[in-house]
Amino acid sequence: MLELLTSETPNGWKTTIMLEELGVAYRLRPISLTDREQKEEWYLRLNPNGRIPTLIDHDVETVRGPFAVFESGAILIYLAEKFDRFLPADVTGRSEVIQWVMWQMSGLGPMMGQATVFNRYFDEKLPSVIDRYTRESRRLFEVMDRNLADREFLAGDYSIADIACFPWVRGRDWACIDMDGLTHLQRWFDTVAARPAVQRGLLLPEPPTASEMAEQTTRQGKNILA
Amino acid sequence: MLELLTSETPNGWKTTIMLEELGVAYRLRPISLTDREQKEEWYLRLNPNGRIPTLIDHDVETVRGPFAVFESGAILIYLAEKFDRFLPADVTGRSEVIQWVMWQMSGLGPMMGQATVFNRYFDEKLPSVIDRYTRESRRLFEVMDRNLADREFLAGDYSIADIACFPWVRGRDWACIDMDGLTHLQRWFDTVAARPAVQRGLLLPEPPTASEMAEQTTRQGKNILA
Repeated sequence: MLELLTSETPNGWKTTIMLEELGVAYRLRPISLTDREQKEEWYLRLNPNGRIPTLIDHDVETVRGPFAVFESGAILIYLAEKFDRFLPADVTGRSEVIQWVMWQMSGLGPMMGQATVFNRYFDEKLPSVIDRYTRESRRLFEVMDRNLADREFLAGDYSIADIACFPWVRGRDWACIDMDGLTHLQRWFDTVAARPAVQRGLLLPEPPTASEMAEQTTRQGKNILA
Repeated sequence: MLELLTSETPNGWKTTIMLEELGVAYRLRPISLTDREQKEEWYLRLNPNGRIPTLIDHDVETVRGPFAVFESGAILIYLAEKFDRFLPADVTGRSEVIQWVMWQMSGLGPMMGQATVFNRYFDEKLPSVIDRYTRESRRLFEVMDRNLADREFLAGDYSIADIACFPWVRGRDWACIDMDGLTHLQRWFDTVAARPAVQRGLLLPEPPTASEMAEQTTRQGKNILA
């Protein structure tokens, strides 16, 4: 049995979407970031970095107990290889997917994360810092857009590269990044958003509350799943 | 033939170290960041993100020409799989290495990168922002230190996880991050720094100039390679 310890964040949704896409049995263990459960000793034994998500594969026993996987990008690769889905087997196709997963992990995620922090949470309003992360995130959107100009998905067929990037692009309003004029990125976003497994994954581990839904609707002018 | 387009940065040194560790034939093409060569059209066709490094495998032909790999983490995995080195074949050993490579790509690299920017390059001195990235980078050092308490390397034997993290830990003084009291991390650092291939990789694509060497010596109180 697979068990996913996660919360409602872009990195969490990558892994709930992946499990829904795979259609395999798994158990969900919601982790409360508000209560800082991810910093508790029992959790740190599974995930030394103290972040969500963590996957536990109870079918794989190690000397330390069931095998635990941390880092959302590593969870995507682990599941893709375990079930032989969403990651091509040929050398170049496989590497292209891993390149875009790495690009998301090292660029899109951290930079949109910083944009969110300085727009939403940081004590001070620092225009020059907000500008830095807004511009860098927009640049990354433009990199995706150019790449998508002549292909339907980021790297060949629908893959863990798309699954990795999608929840971050979906969080653009919260991070205050626009994708105006990026028609290829918008088309890709709509295509991925329409997948039933993606829509199911976005409701996990907990569906949005009514107020979150209302806020999202106001911000995006449309449904939270759109 | 393999060709590496790179420059003297932590992400670049990951890949020169890896190629030196492999002991395979390759060609170096230095990229001048000062001249913004990484943003030129010919380079963007190889690396859509416009960053270094890029690996070209001239032995693998695609419809777009020789196969190009971008993102240092993806280059490490590509080379590890091509030569079957520094990445275990068993499911758990392999995943553990990939987990730590992802951790470096998404955490250690971006956070130390931000620490460096706000300590060294940003127009304004912003103590609260410097503090944010200094504390997060130090936290990441402590995560490594705890992980290294009962093992010699980050994930089993010496692997691409160690190669990915080493150049960043080495750049700690430039990023203004200290590793005081982190004895396991220091021991790991010294072990990796002593490897001849690591020392060769750090001199590529160009050895440090006399003034860089002097500055490094002043800052670290010891040789640049230590």
